Amino acid sequence: MPTSGGDPLTIIAGSGPLPLHVARTAARAGRPVQIIGIIGEADPEIAEFPHVWLKWGEIGRFESVLAAHGPKDVVLIGAIRVRPDFPNIKVDFGAIRILPEVMKLLANGDSDLLSGVVGILARRGYRVVGAHEVAADLVAGEGPLGAKPVPRASRRDVDRALAAARAIGIIDAGQAAVAANGRVVALEAAEGTDGMLERVAALREAGRLRWSGRAGVLAKCAKPQQDLRVDMPTIGPRTVEAAARAGLAGIAIEAGRVMIVDRAEVVRLADAEGLFVSGETIAPEGG
Amino acid sequence: MPTSGGDPLTIIAGSGPLPLHVARTAARAGRPVQIIGIIGEADPEIAEFPHVWLKWGEIGRFESVLAAHGPKDVVLIGAIRVRPDFPNIKVDFGAIRILPEVMKLLANGDSDLLSGVVGILARRGYRVVGAHEVAADLVAGEGPLGAKPVPRASRRDVDRALAAARAIGIIDAGQAAVAANGRVVALEAAEGTDGMLERVAALREAGRLRWSGRAGVLAKCAKPQQDLRVDMPTIGPRTVEAAARAGLAGIAIEAGRVMIVDRAEVVRLADAEGLFVSGETIAPEGG
Repeated sequence: MPTSGGDPLTIIAGSGPLPLHVARTAARAGRPVQIIGIIGEADPEIAEFPHVWLKWGEIGRFESVLAAHGPKDVVLIGAIRVRPDFPNIKVDFGAIRILPEVMKLLANGDSDLLSGVVGILARRGYRVVGAHEVAADLVAGEGPLGAKPVPRASRRDVDRALAAARAIGIIDAGQAAVAANGRVVALEAAEGTDGMLERVAALREAGRLRWSGRAGVLAKCAKPQQDLRVDMPTIGPRTVEAAARAGLAGIAIEAGRVMIVDRAEVVRLADAEGLFVSGETIAPEGG
Repeated sequence: MPTSGGDPLTIIAGSGPLPLHVARTAARAGRPVQIIGIIGEADPEIAEFPHVWLKWGEIGRFESVLAAHGPKDVVLIGAIRVRPDFPNIKVDFGAIRILPEVMKLLANGDSDLLSGVVGILARRGYRVVGAHEVAADLVAGEGPLGAKPVPRASRRDVDRALAAARAIGIIDAGQAAVAANGRVVALEAAEGTDGMLERVAALREAGRLRWSGRAGVLAKCAKPQQDLRVDMPTIGPRTVEAAARAGLAGIAIEAGRVMIVDRAEVVRLADAEGLFVSGETIAPEGG
């Protein structure tokens, strides 16, 4: 559901380059944009748009800022590096009304936190839209992102790695997997994608995974139950670098459901290293 | 299908304590036992039974030794530490007849090799039986192996870890998983169970997994498609030590389908560390 042309948009901005990218894309499409920058997270360059800086504790002001801008679409985007440390937050007066809701959220895990924020906003009449619904280039279409398509020799590994990533997503364990020579060699859980790729590199160095030249594929896809509006798997330049260090032939990401941070740099690095990066549609029954 | 009382049994012995354990158990049950020890692998103590030492290359002699003993039951047991390096093996005359079959096997992966050996033996009229069919104490029944049952607080992690281990087995990626506080935190693939447990320990040390006291469960189960006669998942004393170092509360293994190497020492270590080790039946639909 793409959002319509001239509607005003509020962006709640965490860290990294994505909030500005979304803001600029929306502005180019003719949408009035305001940004709520989280202090300690958001890039100072958000100042090129109408903006307000807020601390985590100033939850009450979120509402008045949102209300002042007029309805209704809100994007939450950017990394939250520091988990708000609740006992040390001074909450403002406005926060007191929604404090019970917020405390309940903070007691739970990260993804509960995000879906909880979506719920709080929804109950107040806002519509949370995904950043990729505003800036479609944040996700991959079908096919290669860079110069190199999936080589014939890597097709089996692409399918196996995607099926594995999907299988562990179904059990809510992880989003990424590596397959090489038709065999799944690594599955991601708490260590994260970069940690998993470091492991593949280490196993190769130790001679426990043997292949010559670049081989093997990193696949990443969304969990079926993931709320893509606020919580999307991502790849970025570091992912390409880590895949290159692990000796992989390329990266397969689920089309439309994995966010690409700094797409231009991802493509540049992949082309320079001779890796493919490809958007793939996963067959409903696991490939 | 337990094998019957007085039938002669041939054990093809790799390394470790299991071949002797199986031999002694079979002998106590009144079965005549002979052992074919693989040179460089099997424990010299196999000499307490009628035995023959053979090199990997002497494949032709396997058959004559098997035939001399009379029918029909064969157990392949013990680790094969060194993958036979085919080009450097001198094959005997007897091997020449089955050389095409053997070469085909060596070109494929490990589990193909084992199921291939089973096939070669079956085509010659032998019956390959699982070591656990001869020595039932090699696998767990339902319930605790040591002093400690699964505590109430760990039941959810037991179920989640077993479901995760089963899910990655279905896609032929791994056999083990770790869950803590209701969340899957590690999935095993090429790094092996010990490697995965080292990772959990490292993530805890780095503060990336937080829990106080012992928590979290290692689960291990067989892949649905695994040929349990020659290829069973195993745990042993090292597994218990690695689980203790990772701060886990216990270990859940699939009842009847995971082999316990040195059960007495596994129980002693688990009891000393306060870990539970429990045999569990996995619900058909993933738990």
